[in-house]
Amino acid sequence: MTPQATPQNGTVRVTVWSENRHEKRDELVARLYPDGMHGAVKAGIEENLGSKVSVRTATLDEPEHGLTEEVLANTDVLTWWGHMSHGDVDDEIVERVHGHVLAGMGLIVLHSGHWSKIFTKLMGTSCTLRWRSEQDRELVWTVDPTHPIAKGVPHPIVIDQQEMYGEFFDIPTPEELVFISSFSGGEVFRSGCTFRRGHGKIFFFSPGDQDYPVYHHKDVRRVIANAVEWAVTDRPERAYPELLRYETNDFFNGKSYQGATA
Amino acid sequence: MTPQATPQNGTVRVTVWSENRHEKRDELVARLYPDGMHGAVKAGIEENLGSKVSVRTATLDEPEHGLTEEVLANTDVLTWWGHMSHGDVDDEIVERVHGHVLAGMGLIVLHSGHWSKIFTKLMGTSCTLRWRSEQDRELVWTVDPTHPIAKGVPHPIVIDQQEMYGEFFDIPTPEELVFISSFSGGEVFRSGCTFRRGHGKIFFFSPGDQDYPVYHHKDVRRVIANAVEWAVTDRPERAYPELLRYETNDFFNGKSYQGATA
Amino acid sequence: MTPQATPQNGTVRVTVWSENRHEKRDELVARLYPDGMHGAVKAGIEENLGSKVSVRTATLDEPEHGLTEEVLANTDVLTWWGHMSHGDVDDEIVERVHGHVLAGMGLIVLHSGHWSKIFTKLMGTSCTLRWRSEQDRELVWTVDPTHPIAKGVPHPIVIDQQEMYGEFFDIPTPEELVFISSFSGGEVFRSGCTFRRGHGKIFFFSPGDQDYPVYHHKDVRRVIANAVEWAVTDRPERAYPELLRYETNDFFNGKSYQGATA
Amino acid sequence: MTPQATPQNGTVRVTVWSENRHEKRDELVARLYPDGMHGAVKAGIEENLGSKVSVRTATLDEPEHGLTEEVLANTDVLTWWGHMSHGDVDDEIVERVHGHVLAGMGLIVLHSGHWSKIFTKLMGTSCTLRWRSEQDRELVWTVDPTHPIAKGVPHPIVIDQQEMYGEFFDIPTPEELVFISSFSGGEVFRSGCTFRRGHGKIFFFSPGDQDYPVYHHKDVRRVIANAVEWAVTDRPERAYPELLRYETNDFFNGKSYQGATA
Repeated sequence: MTPQATPQNGTVRVTVWSENRHEKRDELVARLYPDGMHGAVKAGIEENLGSKVSVRTATLDEPEHGLTEEVLANTDVLTWWGHMSHGDVDDEIVERVHGHVLAGMGLIVLHSGHWSKIFTKLMGTSCTLRWRSEQDRELVWTVDPTHPIAKGVPHPIVIDQQEMYGEFFDIPTPEELVFISSFSGGEVFRSGCTFRRGHGKIFFFSPGDQDYPVYHHKDVRRVIANAVEWAVTDRPERAYPELLRYETNDFFNGKSYQGATA
Repeated sequence: MTPQATPQNGTVRVTVWSENRHEKRDELVARLYPDGMHGAVKAGIEENLGSKVSVRTATLDEPEHGLTEEVLANTDVLTWWGHMSHGDVDDEIVERVHGHVLAGMGLIVLHSGHWSKIFTKLMGTSCTLRWRSEQDRELVWTVDPTHPIAKGVPHPIVIDQQEMYGEFFDIPTPEELVFISSFSGGEVFRSGCTFRRGHGKIFFFSPGDQDYPVYHHKDVRRVIANAVEWAVTDRPERAYPELLRYETNDFFNGKSYQGATA
Repeated sequence: MTPQATPQNGTVRVTVWSENRHEKRDELVARLYPDGMHGAVKAGIEENLGSKVSVRTATLDEPEHGLTEEVLANTDVLTWWGHMSHGDVDDEIVERVHGHVLAGMGLIVLHSGHWSKIFTKLMGTSCTLRWRSEQDRELVWTVDPTHPIAKGVPHPIVIDQQEMYGEFFDIPTPEELVFISSFSGGEVFRSGCTFRRGHGKIFFFSPGDQDYPVYHHKDVRRVIANAVEWAVTDRPERAYPELLRYETNDFFNGKSYQGATA
Repeated sequence: MTPQATPQNGTVRVTVWSENRHEKRDELVARLYPDGMHGAVKAGIEENLGSKVSVRTATLDEPEHGLTEEVLANTDVLTWWGHMSHGDVDDEIVERVHGHVLAGMGLIVLHSGHWSKIFTKLMGTSCTLRWRSEQDRELVWTVDPTHPIAKGVPHPIVIDQQEMYGEFFDIPTPEELVFISSFSGGEVFRSGCTFRRGHGKIFFFSPGDQDYPVYHHKDVRRVIANAVEWAVTDRPERAYPELLRYETNDFFNGKSYQGATA
């Protein structure tokens, strides 16, 4: 099917994806996130963007993980949270999401999503990091105060309890570094990073964990909502970058790539 | 086997990889490159770096494409040229090369190598571009005159006949943009780009084609040699980035990552 | 006076600054730009942004160059064109504009404005370049297709006659490189570049000259209008970055900087 | 006088500049730095680079602050420490140093040098920051492990007592971000940043203060020494970037810039 021009009628169509497994197995997580982590992320986006967005959710155990071609073709921005079951995400679905990102769908990768198949595929690196889960306090400092993703949040954002993620974080140098976090143990982390891949805009944001109520935090929700607005493409249509042959002095009528690799 | 500290005794160990198929099938290419394209690239590096390097070659049709674990473990910098047979490179070998790059092996990707499996895997994008093969003149302009890769080449480098590669080139924003090329048809191209992935340094350089004698060009050879020197890691040992758990106030004794995804 | 929160009531307040001297002395320029170059730039912004903007102009020979504290305090985005009279801009006014940029006013620097006092002061470099005025054709290629400043323009923009500006352009590495131009003579130029300084967003765009009708070009006007929208700060108030002393564990109540340099 | 090709005979000529005023007035500083802070920085460079460098010092109260045209013409890399007397540095000397940096002299700016005239002139921003001097522990984390400036230092570098410098640090986005520091109070700081201006390479490194023995710290010394090696230009001669006019199809014989601003 042909993806629609985005966003439709000015409404940004968001799909919040999450594993939704910790919530079913672990009482603590179920108590922290009674509507699932996806429910909390969805509520945070709606709380900030109201009628400017239309948000649906999709989870790992739905058919095609809830990410059919039709769903993706009608998604302007996808958010991704995964942790214990990265390996259960079907490679074919990963390819599908990857294609949509390169064609212009925005992608917000949250916290332990750093090790998801889709993020490591887009980065090309191991995306490994230093960690500890001991209720550190996290402070999220803005180092790019003019960036739209940092709009309206305190400097720093204070998160009372969090898992520690520390450097070295094996990612490509971010195109824009928006936030740097410190933890009470002394570690630092590039916690808010933008990347562009193909026609798609990507934001990685590390705060958020199944064992802490981080997705109920007002400022964390604001950042995710800001990122949703930022990640919407300015291009009128979703199109995969494509190699074409151009005759001399014809800049606009690409021909098929026949012969490119012959 | 354990990779050796690099470089050994100050000598940079280079492996020049090439498909070596056009040379066997196409008389023009065989005439332009009687020692193979890999032979020309090797000669260009030796011409510039002399005893500072030890250069071997490896080609697609050798067992394991000439890229055994032992060869890679003893390679400080790998150069890569491929074109018509990207699909014939074994996925397992691509994984192996990818691991060595993340662990610190330098990688120089040449020309049509933009569509190689290893480059697209490291970039996370389609690496597509605009092209035409009609004997355009290419001018290679230095936009980062303090970069070591630009050392000693004229501004611009003049290449009388070349295939045209044009924008939009679907790569992540380069960490450093060293060269921009123009073509007589009016197109432009980010022709010299650096990237860092894991502990590895990567340089993409677009001049060079099987149908033109570009790898015999003095300045093109100088750039490739400069890039070889630049891509050697400063780290004392080759090590894959690894996730570890650190106790509070212990920054140096990482524990196993048991539980990281539980 | 206290600058107003920007933008007021959603209307972006733009001040188009120009020397307005060539127009008075040179018949060709007067014919190309009967309303002055500032008139053409203003018309281009209004043509694209309509009621979203309120545009005024200011020129060199007005008192305080038309850039009083009051005008700047009520300007969200300032555009700057200068050429023959950079030296006549008063240093005190340059300081005033510089302060407003660091405090959050957007700045669009056009063409020969590369040598203006305000641009070189913000860049810290010579901003020198290679040039020739011989009616070259300029092609403006988009290398960052997801950037809002590139929205809605053809790839490439074709400008039939232009002054040539070529590399090496002595600027700091742009934070985002949006456009690269080629000229019929073969030169290339980083023609669309963003920079952030303090709380202000800056865009340099090279197309445009007094001897060619470039500011009547539909796509050039679109880029300038896009840049105006992009350069509006997201911060709620205009405030100069300020050093403050913070007690341990108090992140939000900075004290005076007494003693900072003692 | 004509600057010499750099470096001479392979020996890097370093000039360590410092105010040398705290040392004379403040007993604590005199005790920490009996040979002056410049003496400690000089010793640290020599300790690491030995016969590869030739290091001299220059201080504020010498004639021309010890930075005559002859001294600068024979300096490959200049290090700069200032704090209480930035205002006493003569504007003419600042212009002279600025010209040499744009022409290719390396510059290492240390700690409170962030507010020196030369650094703010090169950055174009206020260079303000958040601070506190209360014996925080500083941890210096490497976020660019392949960078030559990070070679051979532990991750993190532990500095037991330091002045706190925190974000937001009002600098242009660094071209390379090598180090991020955290402080025991929870603040973070981009503590190791590279910039390129003209033909010159610049490194800012924040650890170091007159009230703490930071310039005797082994790893801090190693970083400064690494930076000295990195900042040496690869260009064969020192030359200020210059605007020239080029005829069509002549890329190498620039003519005088007569008429450029007429």
